[in-house]
Amino acid sequence: MSGKGEILVGEYLFQRLLELGVKSILGVPGDFNLALLDLIEKIGDDSFRWVGNTNELNGAYAADGYARVKGISAIVTTFGVGELSAINGLAGAYAEHVPVVHIVGMPSTKSQASGALLHHTLGNGDFTVFMEMSEKVSAYTVMLTDGETAADKIDKALSISYRKARPVYIGIPSDVGYFKTSSAGLKKPLQLEEPANDPKIEEEVVHTIVQMINASKKPVILADACVTRHRVIKELHELINLTHFPTYVTPMGKSSVDEVSEWFDGVYVGSISDPAVKDRIESSDLILSVGGLKSDFNTGSFSYHISQKNTIEFHSDHTKIRYALYPGISMKYLLRRVISSLDAKAMRAKAAKAIGFHVKPVHAEGFPKDSITHQWFWPKFSEFLIPRDVVVTETGTANFGVLDVRFPHNVTAISQVLWGSIGYSVGAAFGAALGVYDSAEPDRRTILVVGDGSLQLTLTEISTFIRQGLKPIIFILNNNGYTIERLIHGLHAVYNEINTKWGYQELLKFFGADQSRTYKVQTPSDVEKLFKDKQFASADVIQLVEVVMPTFDAPRILVEQAKLTAKINKQ
Amino acid sequence: MSGKGEILVGEYLFQRLLELGVKSILGVPGDFNLALLDLIEKIGDDSFRWVGNTNELNGAYAADGYARVKGISAIVTTFGVGELSAINGLAGAYAEHVPVVHIVGMPSTKSQASGALLHHTLGNGDFTVFMEMSEKVSAYTVMLTDGETAADKIDKALSISYRKARPVYIGIPSDVGYFKTSSAGLKKPLQLEEPANDPKIEEEVVHTIVQMINASKKPVILADACVTRHRVIKELHELINLTHFPTYVTPMGKSSVDEVSEWFDGVYVGSISDPAVKDRIESSDLILSVGGLKSDFNTGSFSYHISQKNTIEFHSDHTKIRYALYPGISMKYLLRRVISSLDAKAMRAKAAKAIGFHVKPVHAEGFPKDSITHQWFWPKFSEFLIPRDVVVTETGTANFGVLDVRFPHNVTAISQVLWGSIGYSVGAAFGAALGVYDSAEPDRRTILVVGDGSLQLTLTEISTFIRQGLKPIIFILNNNGYTIERLIHGLHAVYNEINTKWGYQELLKFFGADQSRTYKVQTPSDVEKLFKDKQFASADVIQLVEVVMPTFDAPRILVEQAKLTAKINKQ
Repeated sequence: MSGKGEILVGEYLFQRLLELGVKSILGVPGDFNLALLDLIEKIGDDSFRWVGNTNELNGAYAADGYARVKGISAIVTTFGVGELSAINGLAGAYAEHVPVVHIVGMPSTKSQASGALLHHTLGNGDFTVFMEMSEKVSAYTVMLTDGETAADKIDKALSISYRKARPVYIGIPSDVGYFKTSSAGLKKPLQLEEPANDPKIEEEVVHTIVQMINASKKPVILADACVTRHRVIKELHELINLTHFPTYVTPMGKSSVDEVSEWFDGVYVGSISDPAVKDRIESSDLILSVGGLKSDFNTGSFSYHISQKNTIEFHSDHTKIRYALYPGISMKYLLRRVISSLDAKAMRAKAAKAIGFHVKPVHAEGFPKDSITHQWFWPKFSEFLIPRDVVVTETGTANFGVLDVRFPHNVTAISQVLWGSIGYSVGAAFGAALGVYDSAEPDRRTILVVGDGSLQLTLTEISTFIRQGLKPIIFILNNNGYTIERLIHGLHAVYNEINTKWGYQELLKFFGADQSRTYKVQTPSDVEKLFKDKQFASADVIQLVEVVMPTFDAPRILVEQAKLTAKINKQ
Repeated sequence: MSGKGEILVGEYLFQRLLELGVKSILGVPGDFNLALLDLIEKIGDDSFRWVGNTNELNGAYAADGYARVKGISAIVTTFGVGELSAINGLAGAYAEHVPVVHIVGMPSTKSQASGALLHHTLGNGDFTVFMEMSEKVSAYTVMLTDGETAADKIDKALSISYRKARPVYIGIPSDVGYFKTSSAGLKKPLQLEEPANDPKIEEEVVHTIVQMINASKKPVILADACVTRHRVIKELHELINLTHFPTYVTPMGKSSVDEVSEWFDGVYVGSISDPAVKDRIESSDLILSVGGLKSDFNTGSFSYHISQKNTIEFHSDHTKIRYALYPGISMKYLLRRVISSLDAKAMRAKAAKAIGFHVKPVHAEGFPKDSITHQWFWPKFSEFLIPRDVVVTETGTANFGVLDVRFPHNVTAISQVLWGSIGYSVGAAFGAALGVYDSAEPDRRTILVVGDGSLQLTLTEISTFIRQGLKPIIFILNNNGYTIERLIHGLHAVYNEINTKWGYQELLKFFGADQSRTYKVQTPSDVEKLFKDKQFASADVIQLVEVVMPTFDAPRILVEQAKLTAKINKQ
């Protein structure tokens, strides 16, 4: 039932999204959401707009990438078909702590009440079945049914999504988007901060942590995924800059720490880390673990040789000191209190000197001398990057290769190490580039590195870059198939082969790019030359680079990881 | 725990699938299913094989298409990411009654027991959450956990899928595929027949039906989706050929009746039917409705003007006579009994003469004289078809246009009118063509008709035709965007626009086709010429035809349907 308010439900929702910095609404039109989409152009100035994707899964990946750049994002799909096509992308956002607002256009309240056998249903008159499926991968799900309560429900959903850094689901029947609701809520900003920690508990926690840090001899900091996801980059750097403790990142923590900092000391992946890095971190007597997310690919299959007795874990919703759990004690407030309780001079006096992170480009043994191998390519790729680049790497070789890259200042690295859905990077890069565009940062480059195997899954989204006039640099690592799978199992198996005859050199033209450049590099000197090309580096048009690599070459860390994974799968 | 049997669990499963006629296993490899895929080559001769798709959703659509040609199909995906990418396609198979066996490679039983935070999980140690999501769109779900029970569980799943014509879900942890299980089951065939109807109830039902038929003056037959899905084409034709009653099909019933038959009398879509057809069926005093599935797009938004008092409904799992429901009385047995109880001479004596189905190609008013309009194209398309063609049409203009096509003998029509997921037809056509190939029917053509809007979603699967050496004829209706959506809402809206600059003329080459032909037709005479081209008709190589159509033209029935749908969505 329509309420008595001053604003349409759909307008209220879009107004709130604009307030959160969302300027582009992603997704695919479908008849149950079309009227809702009409309301987009009523919001803000021309900068608030609809941006269609080629399909819903790509849209969900794009929403994930957009949120990682802009803080939060929104995707609109249609009932049943559209929302289920997107659901894997939203599950990824759930697993990886990314706030995406999933808006689903549903059949009208009247149709639902009548139990009509509409298209896009299972033919059983059940209109909540798909929402129930989304419940498993959402921090909150709600179907708006009336104008009276719609505004509050929208506020609740958006606030949860942002604060928990997780997807939420808002179902909007086709009539409800046009119901009236109260605009009163718009007068005060959304609740985006977590409530303060309980002061009594926080007091004890701060006291214990400061005591442990003061007593430690070789403390280190280990930064992980949730530093970026739960927005404590600033607090973390205050801690690093105050203490000068050697600081490491996990694979999912890449770009959460300034890698140019003299206290940055490398990437820790358990037993498959660089041996020197492994030694330094595992000999520490106190690990300050910030935003940890201990998945298999993030930890070298759980091969940390760190004692919990020497660990303090800072999380978004709890803190763990040795074996003691403090539920509800959130790192954002806690880190500030800890920082203000430490003595800089004393900390710096005992801080070990970081040896630093210096991976040199070296040709990998066993492959033709003039071939481009991962061991050479990735450190070389470091030299091409500039501050504020957005670097999106695909699950597969690229996600492991990028661990050998030292980032300049303020790079944003995007990957999906935990969820690991292949093809993700293409959609995510599109969303990221759009987020950069919406942030009005025209000089900030978006760089995608994707393998030919993964590109099979989400190719069409490259055409959306073109349609939107975005100018990414796209590296396609062409090594004839699913290399990561080959290394785990089935080195020569037919199922790890792909369509190998795609014309990458024609790709941008095929999708209609008027202005574009396409390259093919086959030798290290091709790469060196390209990386020195100023026009290429300027990213003035969309560019694609086909990087031909040996079929069985892979980054060192992937080779090690694949062995561990194969072993676990066989157990 | 591994059992004591003589065969590996994975081998048992594949052996059973081969027994059901499945020769190609579809899907996408992922590390939790790789070892299982190794077992494929151990089965049968070389004709049992892995066929990879470009992504899981396309794979699910392909499995749907394969099952519609071969009777049942199988797709393998990997845990979490893969299965969720496929889930929309499986929901479609569920809604539309198509038997697809979804095999999901899961983490090993040991990993699950330890609750390890593996990749492809939500990071919460929950290993059944995705199976629970699939439960909503599966007739049966099971995770195999030990060798003792695996064979029986597999048999149960396959039997349910086939008999219920619905997807089932079989989760196989990476170690379980290699557990031993008993091969005893393989000695007897799978249970594929429904149990016989209860004879006492059936007796009453047959008696009542025969009485009603005998008493009727103007009986007609209305054939719908479940005629093909629940395999009563043979019984239905015996009924038609015995009685000579005028026979109609619904949109979802297309190709369930021999349209060359002199008793075939047109397509019934409620109020938006051809007026003459509507009159004839709605003035009947007894409608024998076979395999009905009354969805909105299948019934002109439920605008049947048929009284339930004059209707007998034959379904796969129940029968309805007027308002009386007979649960468990299945049409397959019932039809046979009814047929044998009717007197042919008496039936034929009272059967009204079918006027027949004759739609002439006529240029639609309001568009340039030399443009190709739907009203002209589809009847013309009839002339191009030959017996045993497989015709796959996309949700959108094609699904409505095809209602004006009169099929030759034994055409198989594939569409997704109820679920209506755009992009479906491309994957489904691939699966169908593969099914035809696996049936060793080299002269049977697969023809796909897809709009440019829908092609955005699933383009890459065209490359899989090429990789597998299949030779479909692909018509791309190029009308600059989502025409069906435009007609429902937003005629000139930006959200109904798409990437319009794709180079269709280069598409097959881009995907690496060595031998192919590509055409562009822009006028009726271009089409006439092409349809007379014997080389084109021979389908000796993969062929693509870009059909340029006016942006706002659409089949008549779609225009009417869109008005009804827009009204319902606004209510």
